[in-house]
Amino acid sequence: MAEQVNNKQIVFKDYVNGFPKESDMLLKTSNTISLKLPHGSNGVLVKNLYLSCDPYMRTRMSKTEHGYIDSFTPGSLIVGLGVAKVLDSGNSNFEKGDLVWGVTGWEEYSVINAPEALNKIQHTDVPLSYYTGILGMPGVTAYVGFYEICAPKKGEYVFVSAASGAVGQLVGQFAKLCGCYVVGSSGTQEKVDLLKNKLGFDAAFNYKKEQDLDAALKRYFPNGIDIYFENVGGEMLEAVLLNMRFNGRIAACGMISQYNDQGDGVSNLFHIVTKSVRMQGFLAYHYDHLYPKYFDMVLPLIKNGTINYIEDIAEGLESAPTALVGLFSGKNVGKQVVVLARE
Amino acid sequence: MAEQVNNKQIVFKDYVNGFPKESDMLLKTSNTISLKLPHGSNGVLVKNLYLSCDPYMRTRMSKTEHGYIDSFTPGSLIVGLGVAKVLDSGNSNFEKGDLVWGVTGWEEYSVINAPEALNKIQHTDVPLSYYTGILGMPGVTAYVGFYEICAPKKGEYVFVSAASGAVGQLVGQFAKLCGCYVVGSSGTQEKVDLLKNKLGFDAAFNYKKEQDLDAALKRYFPNGIDIYFENVGGEMLEAVLLNMRFNGRIAACGMISQYNDQGDGVSNLFHIVTKSVRMQGFLAYHYDHLYPKYFDMVLPLIKNGTINYIEDIAEGLESAPTALVGLFSGKNVGKQVVVLARE
Repeated sequence: MAEQVNNKQIVFKDYVNGFPKESDMLLKTSNTISLKLPHGSNGVLVKNLYLSCDPYMRTRMSKTEHGYIDSFTPGSLIVGLGVAKVLDSGNSNFEKGDLVWGVTGWEEYSVINAPEALNKIQHTDVPLSYYTGILGMPGVTAYVGFYEICAPKKGEYVFVSAASGAVGQLVGQFAKLCGCYVVGSSGTQEKVDLLKNKLGFDAAFNYKKEQDLDAALKRYFPNGIDIYFENVGGEMLEAVLLNMRFNGRIAACGMISQYNDQGDGVSNLFHIVTKSVRMQGFLAYHYDHLYPKYFDMVLPLIKNGTINYIEDIAEGLESAPTALVGLFSGKNVGKQVVVLARE
Repeated sequence: MAEQVNNKQIVFKDYVNGFPKESDMLLKTSNTISLKLPHGSNGVLVKNLYLSCDPYMRTRMSKTEHGYIDSFTPGSLIVGLGVAKVLDSGNSNFEKGDLVWGVTGWEEYSVINAPEALNKIQHTDVPLSYYTGILGMPGVTAYVGFYEICAPKKGEYVFVSAASGAVGQLVGQFAKLCGCYVVGSSGTQEKVDLLKNKLGFDAAFNYKKEQDLDAALKRYFPNGIDIYFENVGGEMLEAVLLNMRFNGRIAACGMISQYNDQGDGVSNLFHIVTKSVRMQGFLAYHYDHLYPKYFDMVLPLIKNGTINYIEDIAEGLESAPTALVGLFSGKNVGKQVVVLARE
């Protein structure tokens, strides 16, 4: 008889309107799980190490269909990206002790029945948590959005909103690697300081301290903006549209202000016509084929210190709901991760 | 002493807020002009035959800068595109009797000091007025916007707003040539009938008769929209965003609803992200180099009757202000032209 252990879980309670709250999730402590897979399983049993908190997860908390990802089921486990260690495997591609990243459950141990979708981690001389961030989905998102969608040229003017977040901090650093001038916006002085002092942005500002976003952008971009990496939507997008240059590009990565509250519509769209702006939405998972190319580019840059990556690591599964909810009020400083175990 | 003739003109009175009115323009009958160029002129003297009424002209009536075209000067002549005949030339590229199209004045006779920008008309076996429409700027606009910006594929679902207008009627016909399914929206039953019976659209509807544009689009596009040729902005764009398919493309050609009244902002932009939509603004005059290619494609299609082109021709310079103003309430049926003289 295999060992049975307790398996704490975070359960999704019910569909959310507006901003998610911690009470929309529930810590369930009564579950147990066997640490051996049943005979004949083709899956893997993993111990979850790091869980990723990502803004797209808000979409899954609504009943409304955005068409690209299913809603969570009320009463069932929350799932998301994470890093895990294989404890038992019925699949020939995985063996005990392998480290993997991919979709897993918000729980201590998970059985993953279709492990083909997991990525085996080969490089462990970087923090494992990076596979939820710079070496995971947010990393590819920044790479695809900036290099593929925005097609940057040296000397161009780049603006990044939510600039200290999981994706934005990378876009700014990629822009500097391309010889662009890059400004970031963020919501606290601490983050602004990080952008300027640790992440290499040419300038940064706290959007909450600006009465007039248009005026702020005109101050930082007297010649206008060539590339806008769009993470927030709403009023910031409106102000950016007023400041775009001819043939400008907007990578629409997320619109965090609009996940919870559709809010007022976006004015100034006519500037898309008059300035021949291209606004392109994208989802990183359609660009999985570029991951190896990205990985090969970014790994040496991490190792030699060219690229920094700031993480905000919450301790313990209990802290996961607070960490996720905090994304939507900008409580996180850098990529929000939850650590369950370090090995 | 050269002959002096009367030269009626349409003068722009003052900057316009909201919808333009006929009274924003003034018919001035007191001018005279010599029908000989002064000695040493490098310009041409033309007799204006057809004047083009185009929505972009509204932009020039505002003091606000959209950055891509200058405002008209209060008290001065209105200028726009047109077809004209050369009466006298000081330029070796033009001679008396040449027919030309390009920027001219809203007056009977014009002196054009930089005639290099004029296009000489070589083919006169089509209506001359076509050089304000299908063989002029609106034609290139439809061509560039559809073929270059939207990159259509056979079998795709195409929606065109302002579909019977100067540009829209061509986009619909180009879409059919590409093997697409195409639906147009328009503002009267007469226009809807033209779309279906004369312009070959698969279906058409009167947007003014629809309570719910989203529901209307779902009726005509149960599988969603691959390509939206955007001529109107506002509520129609909002409804379209709800119905775009994955990897959809929006050519933002004009937003006629927003020339006069910025109105409410546009909601549903988040769908650009979740459906990986590309929305691209463009201005035809940046694609002048494609004109010869377009002309060679479309001229035979006109001559063999494959493509139809509907014009709404107002008689006489006096009618020009009414004709221009009418664009913004959809009074025109097809391309709005003003004829001053037929030869």
